Amino acid sequence: MSATIIDGKAFAAKVRGQIAEQVARLKAEKGLTPGLAVILVGEDPASQVYVRNKGKQTVEVGMNSFEHKLPADVPADELYALIDKLNADPAVHGILCQFPVPPHLSETEIVARIDPAKDVDGLHVVNAGLLASGQKAMVSCTPLGCLMLLRDQLGSLSGLNAVVVGRSNLVGKPMAQLLLRDSCTVTIAHSRTKDLPEVCRRADILVAAVGRPEMIKGDWVKPGATVIDVGINRIDAPERGEGKTRLVGDVEFGAASEVAGAITPVPGGVGPMTIACLLANTLTACCRANGLPEPEGLTA
Amino acid sequence: MSATIIDGKAFAAKVRGQIAEQVARLKAEKGLTPGLAVILVGEDPASQVYVRNKGKQTVEVGMNSFEHKLPADVPADELYALIDKLNADPAVHGILCQFPVPPHLSETEIVARIDPAKDVDGLHVVNAGLLASGQKAMVSCTPLGCLMLLRDQLGSLSGLNAVVVGRSNLVGKPMAQLLLRDSCTVTIAHSRTKDLPEVCRRADILVAAVGRPEMIKGDWVKPGATVIDVGINRIDAPERGEGKTRLVGDVEFGAASEVAGAITPVPGGVGPMTIACLLANTLTACCRANGLPEPEGLTA
Ligand SMILES: NC(=O)c1ccc[n+]([C@@H]2O[C@H](COP(=O)([O-])OP(=O)(O)OC[C@H]3O[C@@H](n4cnc5c(N)ncnc54)[C@H](OP(=O)(O)O)[C@@H]3O)[C@@H](O)[C@H]2O)c1
Ligand SMILES: NC(=O)c1ccc[n+]([C@@H]2O[C@H](COP(=O)([O-])OP(=O)(O)OC[C@H]3O[C@@H](n4cnc5c(N)ncnc54)[C@H](OP(=O)(O)O)[C@@H]3O)[C@@H](O)[C@H]2O)c1
Repeated sequence: MSATIIDGKAFAAKVRGQIAEQVARLKAEKGLTPGLAVILVGEDPASQVYVRNKGKQTVEVGMNSFEHKLPADVPADELYALIDKLNADPAVHGILCQFPVPPHLSETEIVARIDPAKDVDGLHVVNAGLLASGQKAMVSCTPLGCLMLLRDQLGSLSGLNAVVVGRSNLVGKPMAQLLLRDSCTVTIAHSRTKDLPEVCRRADILVAAVGRPEMIKGDWVKPGATVIDVGINRIDAPERGEGKTRLVGDVEFGAASEVAGAITPVPGGVGPMTIACLLANTLTACCRANGLPEPEGLTA
Repeated sequence: MSATIIDGKAFAAKVRGQIAEQVARLKAEKGLTPGLAVILVGEDPASQVYVRNKGKQTVEVGMNSFEHKLPADVPADELYALIDKLNADPAVHGILCQFPVPPHLSETEIVARIDPAKDVDGLHVVNAGLLASGQKAMVSCTPLGCLMLLRDQLGSLSGLNAVVVGRSNLVGKPMAQLLLRDSCTVTIAHSRTKDLPEVCRRADILVAAVGRPEMIKGDWVKPGATVIDVGINRIDAPERGEGKTRLVGDVEFGAASEVAGAITPVPGGVGPMTIACLLANTLTACCRANGLPEPEGLTA
């Protein structure tokens, strides 16, 4: 049996289409345009690419994009003053600061300064608490994207055995909360887990968020399981030529796709969902800020 | 084989002894006395007993107890004004409002009004978020008590398979977070879980927080497992005479204690730990408020 390959790129495009539709409706019916503010400190080339990409997709779905570029040596106070201004600005519904920031700045303090209702990256401790206690939160984009893929693939997740490998604040732990909220029986595994292969073999839903290339083997996958591979690892690919590299996930894709019912590839699986969910969160934040119903199908 | 019966009453007394010692030291060395403020709204007899009990134990460990009794029809604004005053009072390190409150008051809003640093019941969304993201939090007393019993019984919990049955905000979910923080592989089960007996049989640590009398059967317990029974259920006990009742846990105690390595009884297991942990949290809050090291062995 060969698994369905979950096309994250196509699904993300579909999600962006739904967002664009709902944004158009908001504009037409309420005169509202969701706005996302992105703060970039310094000149890190990778970060510049990410920020440009986010800005482009924001505009494409009809939202306002506000880019704020600050010099690498910006004093913390100036950055905080900008965040305070954005917190108070009714045209801005989402705020994110591109990480990493230069070492004189504290990521924790930056996140704490952002109004939780505008924290579209879902990093604020209040959002972690709202998620943990089953209330309306802004949810970290990558786990939200995984949840959308799973719901699209499986419909109801209730009663399924889900195993999340990895317990980071950014991915593993919020993913476990989301699966629990959807009534999976959830197991969280990590580097101290004993007999990880056996734990994985029980999973109807297996989410890998480890950061170790192809660590999860094909024969750890339960036949028919849905496998979500969050890992993005760059490895040497001498077969492509001297000095070449390629991206792989945390799952041994070839062998796993012989066994799984459905599986996300790397690249082209979870990755493209992350920006789509950032836009979804911005739309959600705009609706909440204006007392409107949550956008359908785009929240946890 | 017969299980060790975990004597929660004796252990709670020992914890209170440790607290009393540390309180005495705080007074002698720093001139500080931890203070716990308890708010009681209305005249509910059970709540009056609880509050009296908390006050008594608070004084016994050498702390200040501040009781605030408000009439059942107190306007929300007056209650909030009292909370604001207690939040600002440097002699008050912990604040709790005894629940349930009369229906014109919102428990959620009351909790939200309490300074998270003084929220010794660990109910504030910020504390849920701090716990979920692995930071220093005020942790809900019952799961904290379970954790202390487990550490006392087992030493390191790292790598053990823990199963928590129940996913309430008060017990199940914070319990799972604490076990994960101590590096258990954690499974959370609930009413939608399929084949719960099989899930339970995998547990080295089995925590039952369901609220269904003796639901978890002896043959669901893995031989040698440590069983923590949080349930408190009152059932008819005609064998004790007409109209008599007795308390049982969520676990079938007799059969389970034939199989388990160690087990908490009901009553006398987890129950007595709850107030002890309230006092532990008050001491912790006092230390944090004064920039002192955390009290040893009394925090998560
Ligand atoms: N697709 C996307 O948009 C996206 C977004 C974010 C992250 N990612 C990728 O996802 C992966 C995980 O990211 P992260 O931020 O969650 O990473 P992280 O913070 O490094 O967490 C890795 C987790 O994996 C666990 N782990 C490490 N070695 C293990 C082993 N041998 N067996 C079992 N568990 C092990 C760790 O356990 P301990 O806690 O015990 O150390 C930790 O909980 C990375 O490859 C990252 O690049 C992708
Ligand atoms: N010792 C103490 O000091 C102390 C303190 C607090 C509570 N307790 C006791 O602990 C128990 C639980 O309290 P709680 O506040 O957590 O209760 P709760 O809020 O009612 O939560 C009960 C949990 O049990 C789950 N559940 C219900 N029926 C089930 C079934 N048949 N199979 C598996 N799971 C099932 C529910 O699942 P769903 O989420 O799917 O509905 C829910 O998550 C109660 O007996 C309470 O009196 C004791």
